[in-house]
Amino acid sequence: MVSVPNNGLVERLLDGDRRALARTISKIEREDQEAADIVAEIYPHTGKAVTVGFTGPPGVGKSSIIAKLIKLYRDEDKRIGVVSVDPSSPFSKGAILGDRIRLTDHFLDPGVFIRSMGSRGHLGGLAGGSRLAALAMEAAGMDVVLYETVGVGQGEVEVASAADTVVLALQPGTGDAVQALKAGVMEIADIFVINKADHPRAKAAASEVRSILEIGHELDPDPWFPPILMTRGDNGEGVEELKATIEKHRAHMRGNGGLEKRRRASLRDLVVSWAMDRLQKEMQQRLGREDTDLMEKVYSRELDPISASERIFEEVGDAASSGP
Amino acid sequence: MVSVPNNGLVERLLDGDRRALARTISKIEREDQEAADIVAEIYPHTGKAVTVGFTGPPGVGKSSIIAKLIKLYRDEDKRIGVVSVDPSSPFSKGAILGDRIRLTDHFLDPGVFIRSMGSRGHLGGLAGGSRLAALAMEAAGMDVVLYETVGVGQGEVEVASAADTVVLALQPGTGDAVQALKAGVMEIADIFVINKADHPRAKAAASEVRSILEIGHELDPDPWFPPILMTRGDNGEGVEELKATIEKHRAHMRGNGGLEKRRRASLRDLVVSWAMDRLQKEMQQRLGREDTDLMEKVYSRELDPISASERIFEEVGDAASSGP
Repeated sequence: MVSVPNNGLVERLLDGDRRALARTISKIEREDQEAADIVAEIYPHTGKAVTVGFTGPPGVGKSSIIAKLIKLYRDEDKRIGVVSVDPSSPFSKGAILGDRIRLTDHFLDPGVFIRSMGSRGHLGGLAGGSRLAALAMEAAGMDVVLYETVGVGQGEVEVASAADTVVLALQPGTGDAVQALKAGVMEIADIFVINKADHPRAKAAASEVRSILEIGHELDPDPWFPPILMTRGDNGEGVEELKATIEKHRAHMRGNGGLEKRRRASLRDLVVSWAMDRLQKEMQQRLGREDTDLMEKVYSRELDPISASERIFEEVGDAASSGP
Repeated sequence: MVSVPNNGLVERLLDGDRRALARTISKIEREDQEAADIVAEIYPHTGKAVTVGFTGPPGVGKSSIIAKLIKLYRDEDKRIGVVSVDPSSPFSKGAILGDRIRLTDHFLDPGVFIRSMGSRGHLGGLAGGSRLAALAMEAAGMDVVLYETVGVGQGEVEVASAADTVVLALQPGTGDAVQALKAGVMEIADIFVINKADHPRAKAAASEVRSILEIGHELDPDPWFPPILMTRGDNGEGVEELKATIEKHRAHMRGNGGLEKRRRASLRDLVVSWAMDRLQKEMQQRLGREDTDLMEKVYSRELDPISASERIFEEVGDAASSGP
């Protein structure tokens, strides 16, 4: 890949310059021409950070737990990056949560970098975009990168499952667990957190999660039974235990090869989704106008839809093809 | 396209032979080698049937309304095909609903053909598979084809939105409308049906739907304000009005060019999703084993994910390419 001049942006990023990091992520978000080259340059400097996915319904108190968790990491002098993601937002309205943290506890802390991302069509999807933002944070020297998602849904699952450890936060008395189960989030969570531990239904919520988890768990060959922790975002109760449990999960994953396996799968997803998006764009260019000759033939019943698909398949192939 | 011998299957299908129709849909479901050729042969004989998408949460009583609706069409000597779809099922468990109708009212009626389809990976997705099954039904002489879906979700939206007219059935007192709104089903419905009209909350449910629909409706340039009908599946109350309203919607769509537009969009979706699936399969073949050389280079940080994507993009292109 030919390197392009970027005015020393990558060098400054690798030096841990916050403005360079912010600019790099913006370029990634905008799919700037340089973005691919920048990723190529920073990628060898990644892979060492601890990554944690933090997911759960809105209002559960994720941001306050994260703020407390950041504090604990900062006490150990670790540098933290947060990618705050809101798949339901076409723009970066996910900013709300991220900003709340930034503007209070960690506003002036140079060891904390928070970035919000909306779902505006990144190549590779929102999961792809946030994954690249996380890589940039790693390259800039972040020891820990948190993916924070707003809500529970397929988009959130994709974002959070890129992480080494996935934490699912639920609130007592809301039926959140059932919603999460439906959305497929229960399956990807390594650690459960019942926030608002002082809520009268907190214990019941924990039992509910446990009984859902117990179904079919005996079939798991290498069991990590997801611990269910009780926290209070307001006073930080239980957050130290959460941090310790994240580390325990990581050690477990390292021990059984699961960490390597998960990281590979995550990179593979990134590569595949990026390439798929390229193909999709290529195809949309071909069908950009509804009245292409090819589609007119389909509308008029001259050509059947499958044969039309085959032709487009071949045309996209020609466009993507590497050579003669 | 080279025609393959199919022992007169297509001829018999075009003659309205039920066994030929059943076998054809099975071939489509299995993605039999012949399927593409069969679609090419039957496609010119399609495009005349009335298609209706029937969607709504489980338990709302869709199948009993459909059974009554079928009876009304049969009274006019119209032939009816039903594609019964359950995206949540990996196999054809959606059969349950379809079977219930088939085994009671219309079991022996040669003018009714019901087929269930599960989500087992069709090319073009479940929407693609059910669309092709519907084409086969049209070619076999069905005057009306109903897409019946189980549940409300993205899969159901894709299936139902292939139809000329989309009916959304809701049940009073369940908060269904809010669920449907979240799933994006409200936006695609042309007609709302509140089933169990005798329920004490039936009127309230209708008002709820109306107030949701009124939001932003004044922005619609060519307004079809979706009628909200009350039905009773148990005794057939309101089903005649439903049939009349489906016809009214169709006339409206014909009048403003919307029908043509919608049918084109539906065919376009089919072509695009089929081609995308071909590309995805091509890609998965390339990445079928986790330990491809290319991915090993990504894992070891020799090659960055974006460059790897570009290479796969080109490789898929070479494979799909139509030639020099």
